Amino acid sequence: MKLFYMPNTCSMGIHLLLEEIGKPYEKEKIDFASQQQYSETYKALNPKSKVPALQVDNGQVLTEWPAIAFYLARSNPEAKLLPDDALAQARVMELVDYITATVHMQGFTRFARPGNFSPDESTHEAVKARGLELFGNGFKIIAPQLKQPYALGDFTIADAALFYVEHWAVRRAGLTLPDACQRHYNTMLERPAVKRMLEREAAA
Amino acid sequence: MKLFYMPNTCSMGIHLLLEEIGKPYEKEKIDFASQQQYSETYKALNPKSKVPALQVDNGQVLTEWPAIAFYLARSNPEAKLLPDDALAQARVMELVDYITATVHMQGFTRFARPGNFSPDESTHEAVKARGLELFGNGFKIIAPQLKQPYALGDFTIADAALFYVEHWAVRRAGLTLPDACQRHYNTMLERPAVKRMLEREAAA
Ligand SMILES: N[C@@H](CCC(=O)N[C@@H](CS)C(=O)NCC(=O)O)C(=O)O
Ligand SMILES: N[C@@H](CCC(=O)N[C@@H](CS)C(=O)NCC(=O)O)C(=O)O
Repeated sequence: MKLFYMPNTCSMGIHLLLEEIGKPYEKEKIDFASQQQYSETYKALNPKSKVPALQVDNGQVLTEWPAIAFYLARSNPEAKLLPDDALAQARVMELVDYITATVHMQGFTRFARPGNFSPDESTHEAVKARGLELFGNGFKIIAPQLKQPYALGDFTIADAALFYVEHWAVRRAGLTLPDACQRHYNTMLERPAVKRMLEREAAA
Repeated sequence: MKLFYMPNTCSMGIHLLLEEIGKPYEKEKIDFASQQQYSETYKALNPKSKVPALQVDNGQVLTEWPAIAFYLARSNPEAKLLPDDALAQARVMELVDYITATVHMQGFTRFARPGNFSPDESTHEAVKARGLELFGNGFKIIAPQLKQPYALGDFTIADAALFYVEHWAVRRAGLTLPDACQRHYNTMLERPAVKRMLEREAAA
């Protein structure tokens, strides 16, 4: 198994799930500074030019955060990353999808890459402000539904998704998280797998 | 079970899955023309103000297209909307997630609602053009991986997702689909559940 990742991006969440599972895996950094995601080599593996991507043991490459996390949970049942019941699983996917498709891709991305949203540079401050608003609004939607100690009670793949957006909120957007999210973030920072992931990404 | 929907939006895909399953269900139209998605009544059910939302039999409301589709597939196994194998399931979720989070929410939404992307009206034509480009690019990524007769061989929830973006491409964006997508769209239009869904939405 091999993870294609870039430190501090959303692939952090998959990286930490691999650390939670604790089986050997390889990883390869796709350097955004040198636009490696757009290289012919990487596009042959993932024509979408995005991370995360996971090469599974039969050589196939799987993309999309929710699908990769779901696959890791399903193929490593002993790690207990997903409940069994259909509605409980759907609740996990609901939170994962809201975080990846809306909080990240509609909220944070507007803030971090306004040029993807508006062609006119003079509007970029307004686009970034709207991004911060949508990003902050995401946490306001999520906070009231959070259980304890983890998002759905027990640890699941949704905690890995919530962690990466909380990390961006605190470290990159300077946002004050709602209490329930700040508490979740603090709980996550204590997990050994999260510590290992952060150390390794800082050194990569 | 009750579907909250608006005709011709992405809730079409969930509406057609309910028709495929063939069990009785209720549906309630959330009228976007009168901004009903932002009413206090609807926000109490779904604070995200989006459709689709599915009220399940215990009264709980489930949101997010991929999570609702996944739940319908898991809780109606006799409808065979999802394969059993972990990697095969992840491949279905990968296509569903790419369609909902990227092709729809990054591509089509730029085209249909440029004001959500740029505050400056004079840039809206450029935002719409970029939306069409991203939307078309999505089908170019999807077309080479399509199996036959359905996206992953047998019919799955991914076909319902692909159908709603193909329908928008043909009916609302005037896009020429790649051959493999046009063939998929034609195959879908022949399914009785799709015909029923389209007739009911046209009459709603
Ligand atoms: N829909 C994708 C989104 C992944 C994504 O947006 N990845 C970002 C990093 S957080 C990326 O690879 N960006 C590279 C680029 O756009 O050039 C998923 O769920 O995996
Ligand atoms: N992430 C949501 C997106 C749903 C969505 O974008 N729905 C649109 C219709 S296609 C909507 O309800 N828009 C209403 C609004 O934004 O006012 C999902 O997967 O269900």
